Amino acid sequence: MIVLHHCVSARSFRPLWMLEELGLPYRLRVLPFPPRVHARPFLDDNPLGTVPLLEDGATRMTESAAMCQYLAARHGAGQLDVAAHDPAYGSYLNWLYMSDATLTFPQTLVLRYTHFEPQERRQPQVAQDYARWFLARLRAVDAAVQHGEFLCAGRFTAADVAVAYALQLAQHLGLDGQFPSAVAHYWQRLQARPAFQRALQAQHRAALEQGVDPTPSPDLRPA
Amino acid sequence: MIVLHHCVSARSFRPLWMLEELGLPYRLRVLPFPPRVHARPFLDDNPLGTVPLLEDGATRMTESAAMCQYLAARHGAGQLDVAAHDPAYGSYLNWLYMSDATLTFPQTLVLRYTHFEPQERRQPQVAQDYARWFLARLRAVDAAVQHGEFLCAGRFTAADVAVAYALQLAQHLGLDGQFPSAVAHYWQRLQARPAFQRALQAQHRAALEQGVDPTPSPDLRPA
Repeated sequence: MIVLHHCVSARSFRPLWMLEELGLPYRLRVLPFPPRVHARPFLDDNPLGTVPLLEDGATRMTESAAMCQYLAARHGAGQLDVAAHDPAYGSYLNWLYMSDATLTFPQTLVLRYTHFEPQERRQPQVAQDYARWFLARLRAVDAAVQHGEFLCAGRFTAADVAVAYALQLAQHLGLDGQFPSAVAHYWQRLQARPAFQRALQAQHRAALEQGVDPTPSPDLRPA
Repeated sequence: MIVLHHCVSARSFRPLWMLEELGLPYRLRVLPFPPRVHARPFLDDNPLGTVPLLEDGATRMTESAAMCQYLAARHGAGQLDVAAHDPAYGSYLNWLYMSDATLTFPQTLVLRYTHFEPQERRQPQVAQDYARWFLARLRAVDAAVQHGEFLCAGRFTAADVAVAYALQLAQHLGLDGQFPSAVAHYWQRLQARPAFQRALQAQHRAALEQGVDPTPSPDLRPA
């Protein structure tokens, strides 16, 4: 059975949503955020102390976008995957990698220097630099969804799941007001998927059952 | 013919090295850094203004680690790739994604806030935060190469090429003095590969032929 170690609304939402899309059996372990502080024994499972951690037999993974590709290729029976011989393969890979390295990491700077750091270490300039950096890269998503319902291959794939998390985080950070309209509509379409809604319910239910605060972690609601 | 748009010693070194490892024919176009400032017409090729840009027929890619996987899967006849049915597949993907999202991006913060920004916008605290962040994640590489010659699958793969660039950048930034010894030895082994050396020569030669400064761009030599 696949085990996913997760924090509510963290990057680990990507593989959680993939598991729901694919209808795979899994066990969801919800940790308080950040686990390296509030769930120290987790360091025995993942010495980096980061979520997600995905365990599938002897396979252990820590990169959320890699998990999307892995689950689609290994357990997807082709449905959310794009095969290497497909003309859209390069585009598919590019979106998957871009989803985290280019569209999520810059937002973690905004998060860190406006929410997590104590007041004297906050860096409004850096938060602004990387909010702008994210929005500039988001133009690539805008160009792709101007003309197509999904990012590549003419259908919903693991790449849409991976990129959607960057939009979800941007919404938490209040950057969604600056989404171009095609991106805003794309993000609405994705949230309407039954598996997206099931993933939201699954994390809420598992958090309550496991005695973890079910509000998004990090808690990004305005103070 | 594959075309790779490149800046000397930038992330685009990853696909350049892959092309040399695989012995594929390619055209290398070297641009002054940053191209969005010094080679404005490049924005017609890549509206994001970033390198690398890889063109292979109708396929266009901008993510350097994705290109490593693409070239191995599409043009590698299996030699640097790990197939989806291989027990090491999850690990292979994890390293490929980690190479950029987790091991390279944090270093670009160091670069930006100690080298690129004008004096009044430099942020020594942020540079220090992310140098530390990078070195903490590098422990995963250390653990992997303590016992194996390469990262996964018991052989040299595209994942080694992708992760190596993070070590190359760390060396440019002067962080290599803090490499654990297994990582330092791994990095030496990688640099000794003939294809790595050919890639260095190829970028130098192409830069001179195309009238571009052949020193690493960004120029990270101590002032």
